[in-house]
Amino acid sequence: MPHVQNGWYLAAWSDEVGRTLTQRWIAGNPVCLYRLGDGTPVALEDRCPHRKFPLSLGRLDGDVLECNYHGYRFDGTGACVGVAEQQDKPRAATRRFRLLERDGIVWIWPGDPDRADESQLPDTSWLTDPNWTHVRGVLPLKARHLLLVENLLDLSHETFLHPSTIGNAAVAATPIEVTTAGPKVYFQRRMTGVQAPPFYEKSMGLTGPVDRWQDGEFHPPGIFVLNIRLAATGTEEPEGFHMKVLYGMTPATENECHDFYALARDYATDDEQLTTFQHEQQLSVMAEDVQALEVQEVMYATERRRVVESSIRSDLAALRGRRVLQKMLAAEAAEKTTAGPVPATR
Amino acid sequence: MPHVQNGWYLAAWSDEVGRTLTQRWIAGNPVCLYRLGDGTPVALEDRCPHRKFPLSLGRLDGDVLECNYHGYRFDGTGACVGVAEQQDKPRAATRRFRLLERDGIVWIWPGDPDRADESQLPDTSWLTDPNWTHVRGVLPLKARHLLLVENLLDLSHETFLHPSTIGNAAVAATPIEVTTAGPKVYFQRRMTGVQAPPFYEKSMGLTGPVDRWQDGEFHPPGIFVLNIRLAATGTEEPEGFHMKVLYGMTPATENECHDFYALARDYATDDEQLTTFQHEQQLSVMAEDVQALEVQEVMYATERRRVVESSIRSDLAALRGRRVLQKMLAAEAAEKTTAGPVPATR
Amino acid sequence: MPHVQNGWYLAAWSDEVGRTLTQRWIAGNPVCLYRLGDGTPVALEDRCPHRKFPLSLGRLDGDVLECNYHGYRFDGTGACVGVAEQQDKPRAATRRFRLLERDGIVWIWPGDPDRADESQLPDTSWLTDPNWTHVRGVLPLKARHLLLVENLLDLSHETFLHPSTIGNAAVAATPIEVTTAGPKVYFQRRMTGVQAPPFYEKSMGLTGPVDRWQDGEFHPPGIFVLNIRLAATGTEEPEGFHMKVLYGMTPATENECHDFYALARDYATDDEQLTTFQHEQQLSVMAEDVQALEVQEVMYATERRRVVESSIRSDLAALRGRRVLQKMLAAEAAEKTTAGPVPATR
Repeated sequence: MPHVQNGWYLAAWSDEVGRTLTQRWIAGNPVCLYRLGDGTPVALEDRCPHRKFPLSLGRLDGDVLECNYHGYRFDGTGACVGVAEQQDKPRAATRRFRLLERDGIVWIWPGDPDRADESQLPDTSWLTDPNWTHVRGVLPLKARHLLLVENLLDLSHETFLHPSTIGNAAVAATPIEVTTAGPKVYFQRRMTGVQAPPFYEKSMGLTGPVDRWQDGEFHPPGIFVLNIRLAATGTEEPEGFHMKVLYGMTPATENECHDFYALARDYATDDEQLTTFQHEQQLSVMAEDVQALEVQEVMYATERRRVVESSIRSDLAALRGRRVLQKMLAAEAAEKTTAGPVPATR
Repeated sequence: MPHVQNGWYLAAWSDEVGRTLTQRWIAGNPVCLYRLGDGTPVALEDRCPHRKFPLSLGRLDGDVLECNYHGYRFDGTGACVGVAEQQDKPRAATRRFRLLERDGIVWIWPGDPDRADESQLPDTSWLTDPNWTHVRGVLPLKARHLLLVENLLDLSHETFLHPSTIGNAAVAATPIEVTTAGPKVYFQRRMTGVQAPPFYEKSMGLTGPVDRWQDGEFHPPGIFVLNIRLAATGTEEPEGFHMKVLYGMTPATENECHDFYALARDYATDDEQLTTFQHEQQLSVMAEDVQALEVQEVMYATERRRVVESSIRSDLAALRGRRVLQKMLAAEAAEKTTAGPVPATR
Repeated sequence: MPHVQNGWYLAAWSDEVGRTLTQRWIAGNPVCLYRLGDGTPVALEDRCPHRKFPLSLGRLDGDVLECNYHGYRFDGTGACVGVAEQQDKPRAATRRFRLLERDGIVWIWPGDPDRADESQLPDTSWLTDPNWTHVRGVLPLKARHLLLVENLLDLSHETFLHPSTIGNAAVAATPIEVTTAGPKVYFQRRMTGVQAPPFYEKSMGLTGPVDRWQDGEFHPPGIFVLNIRLAATGTEEPEGFHMKVLYGMTPATENECHDFYALARDYATDDEQLTTFQHEQQLSVMAEDVQALEVQEVMYATERRRVVESSIRSDLAALRGRRVLQKMLAAEAAEKTTAGPVPATR
């Protein structure tokens, strides 16, 4: 399955990008990430237009990136500015991908830079808001992008896959409400008078019945935000505990993803022990997901029949998300633009 | 190469199947094996009709199998009986494969259950006959099914591949007689006044010239039985030593098999030291075969030309077996039935 | 990419071939290498015409090679001379490849033996000339043949990839002259008044400005010879240091090569310490090349677009070499002869 090119993906956490050249595959494209001297992040297609050697194995000479195989040199726009030691100045370029850095995230728009639309990005100001604290990272995932999207858009799986941390019967038992706004898909699950699963019990000290809200937002093709609110049943909502989880669901290749996560809370923000606990729990939850999705990938990859899968009400958000991605892909295919990198020589 | 679906394969030894869910690939199908509370063995297609998650990673709740990703629940017929914690009761099912348990073997018929024909199974009563004793097991084999079939239908290879155990010059030097009965292929090799190879010499204490008979039966697509009789030359046959070897040649995927074996004898049945010796020798022989077939698989997989292979008289049984399998495959292809699992939703 | 069949490749160093059967893949063909009793090297297609088993796993019985699976026996021409222990004498053969042994090299011509043309081989008498000494070996390379050819035909890469041994700015800074003669491609680079890179400085004790000459010869499809001459600037050439490097660029499979090398010098031929130093340096240079080409292979293999690569003047020899190979391949395809092994049965 090809990947949507005209859309935002989380390329890296800001502190992952510096003066060291780094390769990361994004939506089928090899990307070389680095910063110019003034701090501007740059993403170039990681194939030298000369002989496809990865630019990320080259070196920075000020703001000029020099390929380490034959010395082709590129400025921050991807344009070749000469060849080291040689007179030739070929009219060549490697594609520069559109980036946007905000709130500690480097976003990438692999498709047509002119269509990059900042308004499609979700609010991430809470990542830099002093009233919030968060942990973050990225895990490799050997499964196709769609499986990760559907995993997050149907949290009923928490009941079965994550019973020792964030899941209990109440999750699957509580129906979701799904709404859409353009390509965006929203769902909300309002659990009332339920028990808090172990993670929340330990994180918030809630032992009696609680109200637990999940508000999910899918910003296609690659971003998911989950708003979590818990409070003792009967409490006015504003006094509850708030958490937010951002997932950067970034396809790498056809069957591999980068699974970026940031887990934030608005209470006990100075409690480092709690931060450590929550990070460990988050990684434990994600390890269960990674293991499940990697097995699921095998079952999809080896299926030889065309199967109409059985679906139920709790799949509604995931099915909407799947359809949105299919539409975006079909539209890009129809444009007959490659929607990929520009010709190596221009 | 696809695999014949309408035919018996050895799915498991009876003691491999219990209340623990187990995945085994059979003839290209992922199969989830377990037993109901009353001991009935069950084989379901190991993909949840919801999102293809392996049912074998789920759990048994009495006789109900619950998928561990989103809680779909199935009875022993493969029918979905509900979704844990949810109101929905989707009209879904996963395919139930036809099984038959007999003499400590769980046989599977991956194709149309209505065509499953018990009469095609060979006699295996000797596996439970108190006058016989046997060892058994299963080895993984990274080679296509046909190579294993041909290996067993042309035992002249014992001379070259197994000289330290069951082979000597007499095997290749003695022609076979081949007969057929419907799709079944039989061969017999009558060695008279020959030396017993090391395995038989040590197993039976035969040092002088012996008569050694091999009677092979191929029950396509997946079963081979070898009847072995040895006696000092001149002895009346009924006083000889009898051995039987059953091979369950079960294709897993296109280039992988399960190589089931049971090796039995009708003499010195209480001699545990002999049993251990014979098991070790059998595993040593099979290790030689596995190594050879895995190399042979590479040579077949990398061949780019269409080659008519050279054949000789000792290939006759193997060529018949190959043709039977080709016919069965062609017939299944012609039916245009997928001959595979039924639609996930019914 | 298929490989040119009608051309010479380095199959092995003479001392690699003996009475032990050895498998080596060459230009997509599995080859079984050995020597007859009289020392004649033989290369047979390493698939038994019976059931494709590798002959290299068989055994030599005098000059007869016996397959270890079912006993087919072959003479040194590849003709089947019988089957061990059996009466049958099938009219079968495995292909015998044309070999030519000279100066410690076993050359192979995988295509039509009648077209094998010794005059296409370069002079290699320096490998046995007492006035010269050399080191040699072979490294495995997981990259397509063309990348290795282009690597050697554009030595401007020495500046960037090998700065601690054989490269410095002068290499890339000095243009090459390219000439052709039939399919052969020659280039020369005349560096004058430059600094000697570390390897040459240490090998020859040259500290002041030197003249450094590179004369490359590509004998397509698989041979490259580099003539190196260094002398203090102003010295008459005959007094300089001479080195020669032979590369046997032998494709194994589509994306794998054997990277044969011999590095020779005509001075201080008895200095074993120098020999050891030069061998270590050569292996260090080749390790850098192998690492680069294997990464480059990935970037070629994952490229989904049709890209016209940017090229500059220093690519001229490599582009000529690429075109020669493309022409040879097109000619072989046009002949519609498979240009590969003959039918297994003849």
